[in-house]
Amino acid sequence: MERLPGFRDFYPEPIPHQDAWSADARQYVFDRWRATAWRYGFREYDGPPLEPLELFTLKSGEEIVKQLFDFRDKGDRAVALRPEMTPTLARMVGAHERNYKKPMKWFAIPQLFRYEKQQKGRLREHFQFNADIIGEAAVAADAELIALVIDTLRSFGLTENDFVIRLSSRKAWQDFFEGKRQNAQGRVDPAQADAFYQVIDKLERQAPDESKEKLGALGFSLDEVNDFIKSSRPTAELQSILEDLAARGLREFVKVDYHVIRGLAYYTGIVFEAFDRKGEFRAIAGGGRYDNLVKLITGGKVDLPALGFGMGDVVLLELLKARGLLPKFDGDLDAFCLIEDETLRSESLKLIQNLRSAGLTVDFPLTPTKPGKQFKRALELKAAYSVKLEQTKDQLVARIKNLKTREEKTVTPCEVAPCLLPKPG
Amino acid sequence: MERLPGFRDFYPEPIPHQDAWSADARQYVFDRWRATAWRYGFREYDGPPLEPLELFTLKSGEEIVKQLFDFRDKGDRAVALRPEMTPTLARMVGAHERNYKKPMKWFAIPQLFRYEKQQKGRLREHFQFNADIIGEAAVAADAELIALVIDTLRSFGLTENDFVIRLSSRKAWQDFFEGKRQNAQGRVDPAQADAFYQVIDKLERQAPDESKEKLGALGFSLDEVNDFIKSSRPTAELQSILEDLAARGLREFVKVDYHVIRGLAYYTGIVFEAFDRKGEFRAIAGGGRYDNLVKLITGGKVDLPALGFGMGDVVLLELLKARGLLPKFDGDLDAFCLIEDETLRSESLKLIQNLRSAGLTVDFPLTPTKPGKQFKRALELKAAYSVKLEQTKDQLVARIKNLKTREEKTVTPCEVAPCLLPKPG
Repeated sequence: MERLPGFRDFYPEPIPHQDAWSADARQYVFDRWRATAWRYGFREYDGPPLEPLELFTLKSGEEIVKQLFDFRDKGDRAVALRPEMTPTLARMVGAHERNYKKPMKWFAIPQLFRYEKQQKGRLREHFQFNADIIGEAAVAADAELIALVIDTLRSFGLTENDFVIRLSSRKAWQDFFEGKRQNAQGRVDPAQADAFYQVIDKLERQAPDESKEKLGALGFSLDEVNDFIKSSRPTAELQSILEDLAARGLREFVKVDYHVIRGLAYYTGIVFEAFDRKGEFRAIAGGGRYDNLVKLITGGKVDLPALGFGMGDVVLLELLKARGLLPKFDGDLDAFCLIEDETLRSESLKLIQNLRSAGLTVDFPLTPTKPGKQFKRALELKAAYSVKLEQTKDQLVARIKNLKTREEKTVTPCEVAPCLLPKPG
Repeated sequence: MERLPGFRDFYPEPIPHQDAWSADARQYVFDRWRATAWRYGFREYDGPPLEPLELFTLKSGEEIVKQLFDFRDKGDRAVALRPEMTPTLARMVGAHERNYKKPMKWFAIPQLFRYEKQQKGRLREHFQFNADIIGEAAVAADAELIALVIDTLRSFGLTENDFVIRLSSRKAWQDFFEGKRQNAQGRVDPAQADAFYQVIDKLERQAPDESKEKLGALGFSLDEVNDFIKSSRPTAELQSILEDLAARGLREFVKVDYHVIRGLAYYTGIVFEAFDRKGEFRAIAGGGRYDNLVKLITGGKVDLPALGFGMGDVVLLELLKARGLLPKFDGDLDAFCLIEDETLRSESLKLIQNLRSAGLTVDFPLTPTKPGKQFKRALELKAAYSVKLEQTKDQLVARIKNLKTREEKTVTPCEVAPCLLPKPG
């Protein structure tokens, strides 16, 4: 039986088979996401992977249903596997924000699902690091969030030569659009504005003629749009963020680039995307300010400014692999206990329990096994030490061998744990 | 908008609201599950939360569909949210077992889903620690697995006074059943055997008359069943496990109890369940040997003996809370940086970046804030230290205050990180 298309299995390393992902690499990524978020004072939350369908259509319109894993449950509820985390966050904030001091700095590592048309290598699920700041309108929050994106990527060994944050402003584009449109008609049609943002979002991926035509239909020329992008004139907000990041020593990780506008309708201020410098991969992360969303999702009950980003595991893992920054993960075994004399199995079990209680990672042969095969197993499992009990004429001793240096040592059984702590290398 | 019934939201602590779960406590449980599994040489794996429906009906029959979140996806595939992990494990093992030396010791922490009839407090999802040993028929593997259950629970501070593993043998019951049935008819009907196991499984929860009647229909008397249970005569396998655990010093955590038989049809050997000693809660964990399942799931392609257990987060969290063993989780903030002089914001940002780069957890006021309010915030966030830059006549200094002892210290900005490392307490 096969797993569903677009879904992944995660196996322990080493993984000699192409068709599988590494559970160890995934955990490595999760650990660093979590550690960096904590360093920045972000706290973890999570919601259900299954939510009422309406939670997602409310924000993104009925269009999104085409891309969802949605169904009716046995209670005839319209439900969907979450395609993104922000609506759940807004719902949770709406329910309990009074219990938390503002600003709330929260993160989550949800698995997200989209029923995308099946293409080669295109996945229908991924994990996403989500961090959001809720309840702070000042642009200093935007800078803090972008700094978190930068330091998260740096925690994997990526440098300013590997990635850049392209910084932009939905508001600058809004002003641009409204300035032009008001000249012609005196008021702005939100649907037209959204259509305009969609064209800008696709500008780099779409044939110029197509963009030109679509812009023309909205009353703009491609040239004036390109001129605006080329100017890269930072707004006062952008300028403030650049200065904040410069004070942190992070200026070289960002550049203003008005190509970025973010596809989703709900952004209201600063928007940004992280890309690899060589331009080989899709966006590593993306986010921005969405000051009206909490109000929308909570039906007006709670109105808080907010901003956030998402960083997926798939592009990040591809990038780390390509840059040689993904460690190999072996079993991290501290000791393999050899049982060559079966009459000492009980004493060996006692020793193993003792070592594990001391926090050491220990394995051993569950059944009688030839000594050579046991030793081979210890090496395969990349154990730091082998440990073997022996009955001498008058006492039980433990022979410890460092499997890297091949150094040997003989001690009493209760001295083994102290000998192996602290863990080598 | 409400979340779906039977699903949980996980919030950062402190959680003053009844209706929410702690994301911090959840992470605490996951961390200990993971750490103990590693100490025992188990490696992590994971599969998709959504699988072909057939993967689950194959093993458990069509009956299980009633309890599943199942639906047809947009590609008209019959799919279901996983109700348990073992079928996925068997599928994954079937696909790639050749790449792994036996025995394989694997664990996972999946979220599982069941569409149970809505009862007060009854959940439709939970997280479950799953650990399995694949490719080892010897009963030593059963002992190793049970030792892992015990040490996992001990890692939370639970002792032999808090819980006990009730150890039993599906095979002993099978012999009991077949011995009686063969006397009467000479062969065994698997459906009848399964019906018999179901009655034994419910014996403690069902009215004696009901059990008596059901057993009678199968040709057994309640008395002979109760006599067998009371005898508690360990089989040779059980005896061997008890000796193995005694060698590890874990004997007092287990007792033979033939009440346990496990409801699922696929167990073939040793079975066990962990209960709190006071009998206040449902089973904390349960598992056993299922030597035929891998063959069944892989359609005969791979035939490996296997055994495993599952431990859910819900009962465990209830038990830890009841025993006062659940720590409180605050923000774990190492330092809160006070910015009383706004002209020093840039220098403060530089310092904050420096501290975070050193691995410290640091927060600060994003916007100009009254000094008293800032200090209050530092205390609310349970920061270990406050740090404040000050411009003296000839240099920039940092004032560090230990918020527990109220001790103060003045150093240069670049001495702050070393002063705060290693983390106090």
